[in-house]
Amino acid sequence: MMPIEHAAGSGEDRLIARYFRPLAKHPGAFALVDDAAVIDPPAGCDIVLKTDGIIGGVHFFPDDPPDTVGKKALRVNLSDLAAKAAKPLGFLLTLALPKEIGDAWLAPFARGLGADADFFGCPLFGGDTDRTPGPITISIAVFGAVPHGKMLRRAGAQPGDRVVVTGTIGDAALGLLLRRDPAAAGRWGLSRDQQNDLQTRYLVPEPRTTIAELLGHHASAAMDVSDGLAGDLAKLCRASGVTAEIEAARVPLSQPARAALASEPTLIEPILTGGDDYEVLASVPRGKVEALRDQALAKGVVVTDIGVVLAADGEARVLDQDGRPLAFARPSFSHF
Amino acid sequence: MMPIEHAAGSGEDRLIARYFRPLAKHPGAFALVDDAAVIDPPAGCDIVLKTDGIIGGVHFFPDDPPDTVGKKALRVNLSDLAAKAAKPLGFLLTLALPKEIGDAWLAPFARGLGADADFFGCPLFGGDTDRTPGPITISIAVFGAVPHGKMLRRAGAQPGDRVVVTGTIGDAALGLLLRRDPAAAGRWGLSRDQQNDLQTRYLVPEPRTTIAELLGHHASAAMDVSDGLAGDLAKLCRASGVTAEIEAARVPLSQPARAALASEPTLIEPILTGGDDYEVLASVPRGKVEALRDQALAKGVVVTDIGVVLAADGEARVLDQDGRPLAFARPSFSHF
Repeated sequence: MMPIEHAAGSGEDRLIARYFRPLAKHPGAFALVDDAAVIDPPAGCDIVLKTDGIIGGVHFFPDDPPDTVGKKALRVNLSDLAAKAAKPLGFLLTLALPKEIGDAWLAPFARGLGADADFFGCPLFGGDTDRTPGPITISIAVFGAVPHGKMLRRAGAQPGDRVVVTGTIGDAALGLLLRRDPAAAGRWGLSRDQQNDLQTRYLVPEPRTTIAELLGHHASAAMDVSDGLAGDLAKLCRASGVTAEIEAARVPLSQPARAALASEPTLIEPILTGGDDYEVLASVPRGKVEALRDQALAKGVVVTDIGVVLAADGEARVLDQDGRPLAFARPSFSHF
Repeated sequence: MMPIEHAAGSGEDRLIARYFRPLAKHPGAFALVDDAAVIDPPAGCDIVLKTDGIIGGVHFFPDDPPDTVGKKALRVNLSDLAAKAAKPLGFLLTLALPKEIGDAWLAPFARGLGADADFFGCPLFGGDTDRTPGPITISIAVFGAVPHGKMLRRAGAQPGDRVVVTGTIGDAALGLLLRRDPAAAGRWGLSRDQQNDLQTRYLVPEPRTTIAELLGHHASAAMDVSDGLAGDLAKLCRASGVTAEIEAARVPLSQPARAALASEPTLIEPILTGGDDYEVLASVPRGKVEALRDQALAKGVVVTDIGVVLAADGEARVLDQDGRPLAFARPSFSHF
């Protein structure tokens, strides 16, 4: 669309040609020279759709490495596809850039984004680029394929199912705390490597794309953990009309997170509610847990059984080592 | 994704439930309670994908009526689908809102958006809502269906084809000039109704959805006119490896545009280059022009023959009444 005031200069075509055309490797993207792109849906498949946006100064720090910003923008969407049992097909990118953003930021941003587009088999299909008087605003819409009728939903958890989670929980939340308060590393007794591990988990999440299909075979419900394990479990339970009990002591923690928690036990709250984990939370019928665990492990993803789904009787609970429910000041995050 | 600083308050769920759930009428949207949506692609069809964003203070005035902002955000994307011969299936919405934006803006915005989602058969499938320190930023990704392999492209125009355009050209550009300089209405000798007509064309474009299928049957190439007729014609020609000559006198103008042009002949430049028309520009084999014109007219859309496609010999030209090429200071718009 035309801006209401004509801006000086001309370079949108150059910017697209230089940075984004190389990411548009699918023939249906028409090398970004057409007005739209086209995908031929895989036979027998539904198309899964998801969009998520990130804003400079809101969801990432303005001085975050631009390649990690590009990676995270795509990965948070890929994480949703994985939790929905869908295989990535491609994405659309909308960029709004302040005028001070030039090649020095765009080149590494596009490099990080492009590396992940290749790695996850999720090419760029199209986009839109505008100038904004506001912060960098990146919106990605991703689409994936799932066998017809088989999108894994939040609804579907049954009493008796086990609650499982992939990878480790809380690293990104601790990484963010460290980013905001570097002195915490001293209080938590973390080595430089441990600090880096946590901060990297915040900057570059690991979407569980490799086990999307396995989740589709074994899970009864799933979602990705973006707003905190405790709150996201409550959402999954509400959507399924059930409740659940998980044990804090069974929640898988990384070695740096265990070290920090040992120094400062109150960190259990940001670990379980801080969000940005981008792990998969799923309910799995008891008889399928072992198969999922073994098959996921063969693909390099640890799946941990952390609790049980129960018939609805109130909110989902996280139990401490004495079996008492933990109370959190803020079980989940809302933007408004 | 989690913001880097926790904001106060909680209301994202309320906002979605109140304003956006009513727009999510397709069963594959799961009433916006899941993490993603699903579409079952129509048999034998490709999915056409497009995204376009609009930013407050850049693409619309902060005091534009919010219902028209909602309409325009969707319509500019529907316009692309129509020019690609695709039938709308649905859309994803990403909203970044300054904190001062509340119900007074959101209610009419969602009402306008929802009215058009109904009217054009293009339901909401999902979205993402965040707070931003910047201006209102709205990104829509739309998807449509077209018979396999039949997306109408920019490439495909053949020498000898006629150049046609739908509706009238230049109204939105004149409407924008009036918005920025209300005194122009006096110089142009426009009545209040004529001013309103032009401004309405700027605020609420008319995507040519009803003739998308006809375009697919008859046109050899097409695109929507968003950045100015002259520049967009040049783009279509470049993509097709041809050139074209159109006659300024044959370009269809509304009655208010003709009146303004009669008073101020230099307005031919903003009319032909100002953009925001959201009409369809197409090349059509000579033998199919009449059928397209008649069948489009039966659906309420006027299609006008404005020139001819020629073998490549330089830039596309707009000829004046003496057959001389018009020279424009700025034939098309670039955001950078």
